[in-house]
Formats: sequence, C-alpha cells, structure tokens
Amino acid sequence: MQGKSIGELKVGDKVSVTRAFSEQDVAAFAQVSGDHNPAHMDEEYAKGTMFKTRIVHGMLVGSLFSALLGTELPGVGSIYTGQTLKFTKPVHFGEEITASVTVKEIIAEKNRVILDCLAVNPQGEPVILGEATIMPPRK
Amino acid sequence: MQGKSIGELKVGDKVSVTRAFSEQDVAAFAQVSGDHNPAHMDEEYAKGTMFKTRIVHGMLVGSLFSALLGTELPGVGSIYTGQTLKFTKPVHFGEEITASVTVKEIIAEKNRVILDCLAVNPQGEPVILGEATIMPPRK
Repeated sequence: MQGKSIGELKVGDKVSVTRAFSEQDVAAFAQVSGDHNPAHMDEEYAKGTMFKTRIVHGMLVGSLFSALLGTELPGVGSIYTGQTLKFTKPVHFGEEITASVTVKEIIAEKNRVILDCLAVNPQGEPVILGEATIMPPRK
Repeated sequence: MQGKSIGELKVGDKVSVTRAFSEQDVAAFAQVSGDHNPAHMDEEYAKGTMFKTRIVHGMLVGSLFSALLGTELPGVGSIYTGQTLKFTKPVHFGEEITASVTVKEIIAEKNRVILDCLAVNPQGEPVILGEATIMPPRK
C-alpha cells in the first residue's frame, strides 16, 4: 500500500503519534548510532548538567518525524530529501511526546512537498520544531 | 572529560568516523524509532523502488553527526540546538560511510558554534550535507 501521491495531498493534512522513550530505547539508540554521550547514558554525570537528569537523544526524538513521513504522510514510497530540526527543550525519559507532521506547501511541478514538523511535551511546549522535504510516491 | 569550550575551538577543527550499517542496525533503528517503512525493511518491496534494494534510514546515518558532536567535537557537555540534513544519495547496507563535522563559525558572544556536517560514500559522493548548531560546554 503506497502512500499518497502529490495529487492526493492537500495543505493542512496532518498525522501525529505519541510516544515515550524508555531507558532501554535510549540505550538501543546509543548502540546503533554510536552516540554514547553520558548526558543520555549516565545518571550520575547527568545530575551535574543543566538538565539535572539524563535526556533522550534529540535525533531519536526527531526520528518520529521520519516514521510518520515514511509510513503515514505521505507514506510508503516517499523519498526523504531534507529535514531541519531545532531542539528547543530537553526530553526526559518516560515523557510522552506527541510528534506531528503537517503539509505546509505542495510544489507539484517538482513533485515536492514541505511539511511542518512539531514535537511537544505533555505541557504542550515544543521540544522540536522543523521542516521536512519529501518526494511523494508517483502513481 | 568535558568537551571543548568555545575558547578552545577554532574554525576548521574537524573529526570524522567511518561506519557501515548492517541489516541488524537497520532493524534496531526501525524498532526504536517506529519507522518500519518497507524501503528499509523488505527486500522484495525495495526491488520495485527507484533504488532497487533496501536502503538505510537517513536519520540513522544522520545520527553519526550527533555521535561526533556529543562525544568528540565539541564533545561531552555540548547542547545540541539545531541540525539540518539534506539527503542527497541513498545509503546501502554494508556501505562504508564517512561522516565528518567541521567547525564553520564561532559565535563567542552567544556561546554557539556552527559545524558543517558531511557524510560521503566509498565513491566520495555526498550522501548527507547539513549544518549543526551547538552550545559547547562552559568551563
């Protein structure tokens, strides 16, 4: 089941997912990425940081956008050509993060779509803001 | 061992890492991110795509930058405030990718450093181009 082609998308289309990251998730991401920064891995170290506790890797939280784009909107068959990410707040272990992608601009002649990307914490504060550029599947 | 503070960095400072991603790495990233797009997971499906075979998740390759920034340059204690990524070529399973980050601009009064991010394949072709914005550790 292919995702939506450019003609099937409209500005404002939106999907979202809510997800919390566990200590095990953070360890798995550290393993696969090689990012063993103690801010994510070592609670004793993290107590001395400005965040006072371990935080989830920003790129792991950002990967929620990749999941939404590649499986839901536009969905399967999309080609990911760009992503910007601003990390605006730390994400704590176990905190429920709601990530959403919203169609912002459709450039039909180039088969490109630009989507706003937003992840918020349970207080509704943005933790990541960004934009994705996608080539939707052709049909 | 804290990373480098703003006064210890200079334009042109560079670190790099070479890494290949296996089928197991891609499966682990799919699990932790929720990104089960068949372009990464299903060889039969992938044969019908423009890339003709499964490819590595762009955000997994991009996480090499996070690893370099958080553990080497500036290193431990850095705060990641932004990342841009342009995915310019597909990355195949087992392909040795060299990712590097290079100090491009130092904004001392804001304690910010901007680093160029580049990942290349064994043919020397860029697979990701981007920029990271970091607050280096204060000493």
